[in-house]
Amino acid sequence: MRITTLLIALLCTCGLARLDAQEAVNEDINTIIRKHGLEQSQAMEIAGWMTDVYGPRLTGSPMLDKATDWAQKTLNEWGMKNVHLEEWGPFGTGWEMSHFEMHASSPSYWPLIAYPKAWSPSVKGTGSVIYMAAETVEDLAQYKGKLKGKFVLLDTIREVKEIWEPNAKRHDAESLLDMANAPMPTPRPRRNYNLGARGFRTALWELMEEEKPLAILDRSYKGDHGTVFVSSARTAEGRSRDKDKKVVPQVTVAVEHYNRILRNLQRGIDVKLSIDMKAEYTNPDEMEHNIIAEIPGTDLKDEVVMFGAHFDSWHTATGATDNGAGSTVMMEAARILLETIKESGVQPRRTLRLALWTGEEQGLLGSRGYAKDHFAVFPPDSYTPQSLKPEQEKISAYYNLDNGTGKVRGIYLQGNEAVAPIFRAWLQPFKDLDASTVSLGNTGGTDHLTFDAVGIPGFQFIQEPMAYFARTHHSNMDNFDHLSGEDLSQAATIIASFVFHTAMRDEMLPRKESKIDGK
Amino acid sequence: MRITTLLIALLCTCGLARLDAQEAVNEDINTIIRKHGLEQSQAMEIAGWMTDVYGPRLTGSPMLDKATDWAQKTLNEWGMKNVHLEEWGPFGTGWEMSHFEMHASSPSYWPLIAYPKAWSPSVKGTGSVIYMAAETVEDLAQYKGKLKGKFVLLDTIREVKEIWEPNAKRHDAESLLDMANAPMPTPRPRRNYNLGARGFRTALWELMEEEKPLAILDRSYKGDHGTVFVSSARTAEGRSRDKDKKVVPQVTVAVEHYNRILRNLQRGIDVKLSIDMKAEYTNPDEMEHNIIAEIPGTDLKDEVVMFGAHFDSWHTATGATDNGAGSTVMMEAARILLETIKESGVQPRRTLRLALWTGEEQGLLGSRGYAKDHFAVFPPDSYTPQSLKPEQEKISAYYNLDNGTGKVRGIYLQGNEAVAPIFRAWLQPFKDLDASTVSLGNTGGTDHLTFDAVGIPGFQFIQEPMAYFARTHHSNMDNFDHLSGEDLSQAATIIASFVFHTAMRDEMLPRKESKIDGK
Repeated sequence: MRITTLLIALLCTCGLARLDAQEAVNEDINTIIRKHGLEQSQAMEIAGWMTDVYGPRLTGSPMLDKATDWAQKTLNEWGMKNVHLEEWGPFGTGWEMSHFEMHASSPSYWPLIAYPKAWSPSVKGTGSVIYMAAETVEDLAQYKGKLKGKFVLLDTIREVKEIWEPNAKRHDAESLLDMANAPMPTPRPRRNYNLGARGFRTALWELMEEEKPLAILDRSYKGDHGTVFVSSARTAEGRSRDKDKKVVPQVTVAVEHYNRILRNLQRGIDVKLSIDMKAEYTNPDEMEHNIIAEIPGTDLKDEVVMFGAHFDSWHTATGATDNGAGSTVMMEAARILLETIKESGVQPRRTLRLALWTGEEQGLLGSRGYAKDHFAVFPPDSYTPQSLKPEQEKISAYYNLDNGTGKVRGIYLQGNEAVAPIFRAWLQPFKDLDASTVSLGNTGGTDHLTFDAVGIPGFQFIQEPMAYFARTHHSNMDNFDHLSGEDLSQAATIIASFVFHTAMRDEMLPRKESKIDGK
Repeated sequence: MRITTLLIALLCTCGLARLDAQEAVNEDINTIIRKHGLEQSQAMEIAGWMTDVYGPRLTGSPMLDKATDWAQKTLNEWGMKNVHLEEWGPFGTGWEMSHFEMHASSPSYWPLIAYPKAWSPSVKGTGSVIYMAAETVEDLAQYKGKLKGKFVLLDTIREVKEIWEPNAKRHDAESLLDMANAPMPTPRPRRNYNLGARGFRTALWELMEEEKPLAILDRSYKGDHGTVFVSSARTAEGRSRDKDKKVVPQVTVAVEHYNRILRNLQRGIDVKLSIDMKAEYTNPDEMEHNIIAEIPGTDLKDEVVMFGAHFDSWHTATGATDNGAGSTVMMEAARILLETIKESGVQPRRTLRLALWTGEEQGLLGSRGYAKDHFAVFPPDSYTPQSLKPEQEKISAYYNLDNGTGKVRGIYLQGNEAVAPIFRAWLQPFKDLDASTVSLGNTGGTDHLTFDAVGIPGFQFIQEPMAYFARTHHSNMDNFDHLSGEDLSQAATIIASFVFHTAMRDEMLPRKESKIDGK
């Protein structure tokens, strides 16, 4: 056993050294990629249609269907092959807001900056506001029979801070060095949920569903100055998009407006609000779709290099940085590759496959649906694969982008040490574009995890933070104006080069040691 | 003549030296003022009612009347004497928004963050959007007959920048030193208006008033991320609040939303918007009121120390930093003075007079109306006094606050060198509260100018900038959450001390050499 281990270690070391010395970089191709990506970028043109015209793109919504049609049409016009949709699901019902207006009507009129949480039902009415100070199941009893026709506040006042520090930032040497020096990642401990608190929350929401208040209001948990972060409505049990759901209307209010309402209640003033919300439940078949498009390979065409991003968004803006940015960059990378192939006459050896996922915001559902169809058998209600399908062996790599509009500063290896020298070699020509850092670390929260989970090398690039978490991620300000064309063009250029080089090398990318059955 | 000048110079120098050496500071009184102002502050309680409950306070609006009732009631309850209103005017008609909702209805629904400009009339309708690219009177002809029932955009796209630098700031040694070293102010040159451009603007607005579009939209000129700066509607001629006005509905839209509309027009997409705005024109007698309240003096009770701030605001938030802050501080200073007098048994020698002005936002109208009644005779349509009234000689000083929520870092002398040693002596005990800087410089834009113009020493304090110009001044985010209680308490404490010391000294404050006839 020990000898075997030693042999493997030796083999690995030799392999790494070989790669380090020999990993090919095609400078001619990179020159053409740079021309189309940097000098003739179409990134902002693509992003404009995807956001201003076809945003937001909430999974299940009619607008996502329109955006999907536009994306397919665009990819076909460019000359992508095998452009098609692949179904996944069931997702639950779709939802789209068709009207929303809310204001204070007593003691005086003022309009609210507020947004319904997704899957909130239609409601229209005027009512008093009540603040529920309940902290235990016992506290709830006093509110029984008192909530119908009312607006219910659950949150306390959140103090607003002025912007004493910049909201937006780019990486500096220090933050990049931290990533460059990241150790081999270890599995994260599972979160230890507070079951007591969960019991209270369930009881609270059961009360809400019995009492049927006009709406439940919370305040944006960050943002301020008119920026509001909003995602999905909740229920006592199950998901708000499930059929037979009982969803109480839920609205997130700008913190300054929420605080004003609550302070006036604390002053003993009867505050009345009015709401007029219309929402349609759509998509009765509950099935959703990913968009797939290819550039066929040649001698290794059965092997595939995948690159993609999630196409869906939340609903209060146009999904520009989350994840119009990533989808734009990946569509633009495809366009750059098509142009580069045309200009150079060099065909990719492996097939290049673009994927625009949906359902990411509800739990990487689109990419997981794809993994289920193509890569692995999963037990019910689990995304830990039971066994692998043959197609899993044919995917060399999957590249993903989903951290906003910021340009690429490097790449996370997701614990795959063997690809380090390869990626270092491929990043070397982009040193002038500030993309050099290779981090052994993991990054989470998006669709490369789906690939990593089934043993396919899946990567997310290191991106400039910009104002992503401070301002745009899941907020009403996630719109085109917060995109940076220069950053998107840089990302598309580097990713096109990564995809091309992955397609051309003799071997597929090395994989991490797998613990999955059947591999 | 030369001898006279020399004599005056000598007298002045002696006077200054005397003041420098002897200017009295009553430390016992300051201790009591600090207790009530810093330890038992009511500033945020006052500000809460003035904003959350009685905001906004647009001049001429019913809400301003309610706020005025509350202020008078509060001042009476505290024990202020001679609490009354003083009429000024005519101002024009009042205006109050009673409903506002606007959204895009084609090619897709989305709600707009937008606000009507004050004095815009009621309007309801849906229509296409047109961008007017006119730059000359000749360009306007092509739009004739094409604007009725439409939304008209006049502004180009404004690029949005992320917040790479802090929005909010406090003074540092450098910025304070600039003020400390400011030279004697010289009269400002009059602005040189571009009459050609004004001719075009008039023709443009005449066209609007003929064509009657549904509404004219502009974009917030700064702010972003949901913050919108909005003031008054305009007309081709005269003011939008004038009787027989022809006001076209005007709306300011959040820049990200405005840009989205305009970009879609540029893509050739027919954008349709819907508006539902209800506004009432109020106050048919056109007369407005300042709030006056006093603490009577004793041996010098015919002489008066005035302190005040403007009470009115714009209409899209609650007028918290402009100028709930100043009005709060001045009301709180009055309360501190009442408590201090009660506790110390020391009565002020001169009468202390609080003034809460209205109509400031439309051109210092309330304080100028007061000056007309009490201090000077003005020629028609001018605020340069023709002659002075006897009461002008009885006002020792007027102290004003109107630069947001930031605490006091010192005072502008408004070119009155002789008061420098006095104010230095009075600021000395507040060094621990960071208020030490005396600037010979002027500051403008608010009601102390009214007093300065009639030869009464009128002063505005140097304040911390905070987020005033970046975020709250005339914006939809000018609400209670952007007030700093600690800063307001500090300001009220220092101003209460200034007012008290001004009331107690043997002489009134020295005045600048006057060029006004009749003095």
